[in-house]
Amino acid sequence: MIRLRRASKPVFLQNKTGKADAKSVWIGGDHPVVVQSMTTTDTADAEATLRQIYALTMEGCEVVRVTVKDPPDAAGLPAIVHRSPVPIVADIHFDHRMALAAIEAGVAKLRLNPGTIRDASKTREVVQAAAARSIPIRIGVNMGSLAPDLEKALGHSAEAMVESAMRHVEILEALGHTDLVISLKAHDVLTTVAAYRAMDLRLRKRETPYALHLGITEAGLLRDGTIKSSIGLGILLFEGIGDTIRCSLAADPVEEVPVCWSILKSLGLREKGFEITACPSCGRAEISVLELGQAVEAIAKEYSAPVKVAVMGCVVNGPGESKMADVGVAGGKGKGAIYRAGELVGTFPEGQLLGALRLEIEKVIRDKYPAYAHETT
Amino acid sequence: MIRLRRASKPVFLQNKTGKADAKSVWIGGDHPVVVQSMTTTDTADAEATLRQIYALTMEGCEVVRVTVKDPPDAAGLPAIVHRSPVPIVADIHFDHRMALAAIEAGVAKLRLNPGTIRDASKTREVVQAAAARSIPIRIGVNMGSLAPDLEKALGHSAEAMVESAMRHVEILEALGHTDLVISLKAHDVLTTVAAYRAMDLRLRKRETPYALHLGITEAGLLRDGTIKSSIGLGILLFEGIGDTIRCSLAADPVEEVPVCWSILKSLGLREKGFEITACPSCGRAEISVLELGQAVEAIAKEYSAPVKVAVMGCVVNGPGESKMADVGVAGGKGKGAIYRAGELVGTFPEGQLLGALRLEIEKVIRDKYPAYAHETT
Repeated sequence: MIRLRRASKPVFLQNKTGKADAKSVWIGGDHPVVVQSMTTTDTADAEATLRQIYALTMEGCEVVRVTVKDPPDAAGLPAIVHRSPVPIVADIHFDHRMALAAIEAGVAKLRLNPGTIRDASKTREVVQAAAARSIPIRIGVNMGSLAPDLEKALGHSAEAMVESAMRHVEILEALGHTDLVISLKAHDVLTTVAAYRAMDLRLRKRETPYALHLGITEAGLLRDGTIKSSIGLGILLFEGIGDTIRCSLAADPVEEVPVCWSILKSLGLREKGFEITACPSCGRAEISVLELGQAVEAIAKEYSAPVKVAVMGCVVNGPGESKMADVGVAGGKGKGAIYRAGELVGTFPEGQLLGALRLEIEKVIRDKYPAYAHETT
Repeated sequence: MIRLRRASKPVFLQNKTGKADAKSVWIGGDHPVVVQSMTTTDTADAEATLRQIYALTMEGCEVVRVTVKDPPDAAGLPAIVHRSPVPIVADIHFDHRMALAAIEAGVAKLRLNPGTIRDASKTREVVQAAAARSIPIRIGVNMGSLAPDLEKALGHSAEAMVESAMRHVEILEALGHTDLVISLKAHDVLTTVAAYRAMDLRLRKRETPYALHLGITEAGLLRDGTIKSSIGLGILLFEGIGDTIRCSLAADPVEEVPVCWSILKSLGLREKGFEITACPSCGRAEISVLELGQAVEAIAKEYSAPVKVAVMGCVVNGPGESKMADVGVAGGKGKGAIYRAGELVGTFPEGQLLGALRLEIEKVIRDKYPAYAHETT
């Protein structure tokens, strides 16, 4: 099944390091939905920030945002931009000097609401400098930071977010900078979905479908934040809305990245490593599906091919579910059966099951995903 | 914002214990979406199964399913049904004697696909016995257990699931038992959504909108399973489809219940305890949002009022986000600010912050949620 994304105006992100091979990413257009996160370190501490950027990148983060709130942060930025393996976005609030410093440091994108810079000449200076270096700008409206008059007139509504964002859009358009991305984050699913839908319609009426950065802001702690982000981003992505995503969790930011990937994989929008289905187990299970599943997850870390593995606790659904997977493993008492596309490969005592499974997985990779054959032994 | 559910034919679940005050639940109609899970214990071990049922109930599980695969399981059932604080559903495969034993034991519902009982007279015996005791039946089609001819003709498709389910529906209708619930679980989001949407349309054309039990089968381990369930169930519930949900996780079943609740709360379909928003933290944060958020979660466990609490790491979004919450807490260096509906209550040194927060939460409960005032000190 193929999911269609609504076409948007793509923007190009690359750190301005002078290195021709610096990693670049497109957001929007026909490009895959991009996974983002944000550091929680002190940006002034470039080493700590880079360590976190490397950790995020290892998990598959494709763009990293860092806050640039004051001159010490800005001083840390050149080293971060130069050494980061992925495009860096500078998060700017209020202070146009921080924006100029970030542009100077060669960031790949700014997150900046131009209407929050009070002086129009300063706004022009920042926007023209960004445009001159081909640095896109994300307008990021959160429900907590609406334009005060719109908040008064429209309340904490999706409409107020859209109108606030459009003001920033019009400022940038008037200054001739149209490499834009827009986000509209509320902390609840229903308002966030309503806001992005309304913005999508609004932009299409104006024939300027800017790329949309999706997120639920302040989504919550690990479990609730994961669930809110999955539902909200899931509904929008399923409708074809959204070009890049961030899952804001009150947790180690490294936790955000697999959540984003899992959302995109679930909707068939990206592929990344194994797709493991595992039955929830029940009174019929004769092995620990949880332990077996975790063992398969550990094996999965060694490969990047999109192998489909089904982990089943019993024979009621085991063979059937295995038909839809590349490799299936179903538990029995002290032994387990391995299936290849639903055909029984063999039955193995518990102690040999994982070894046999790994062999079968490697065979599948060589047969069905030859581009990844170099990862097999 | 109010979410409308599509009207369905409600069914009534209550264990047939002879106790007039036994807890009962309606599924479908105008009734709230019901949270379900399934035990992983050996049903023959009634004590262990009841311990798990109590643990599930403590988390808010409203209906519990147990497998009844053989006579020892069936022997465990009467004690389970009699002592369970929530309605019990018996999960039956193939064997009509287990269905009869479950009906005899007084279960509140059967999960049974009548087409899998080969002998028509046995099917009739089971269905008539269930109807005589007002025991609803859930038809549960999984992608791994399609009717073989339909699997051959239609492949592993949403259509094959719908057609398989309709066969079972027609058997029950022909026998005059129309207290039905239907589930159509695939292990991937896209097929599951397509199947439930198609079934919803199909039932409405026939003017028999049976209640739908939503789930993604074999969704996976804790993180991926939570995300798949959130997206798939979220999309359907957002469209008004679904009367009861189960989040199948390859994890301790007790983990499934808060996931279900979080999905329903996120969509405004149910209320249960605090709604905590927490910022993801960033380089601006001067306190640990994660620790503060976890402390708030610990406080939340003591109350069941739907208090909205915003936990923010800094003053950029803190006051703004707090306006939408009943109580907001925003961190600063060694101190924190507490807000009531966006108005500053006061600034407190770190050591006094949680105590002050709890006092404010209790004030909010007494003022805004007086039905829960008895929970305050």
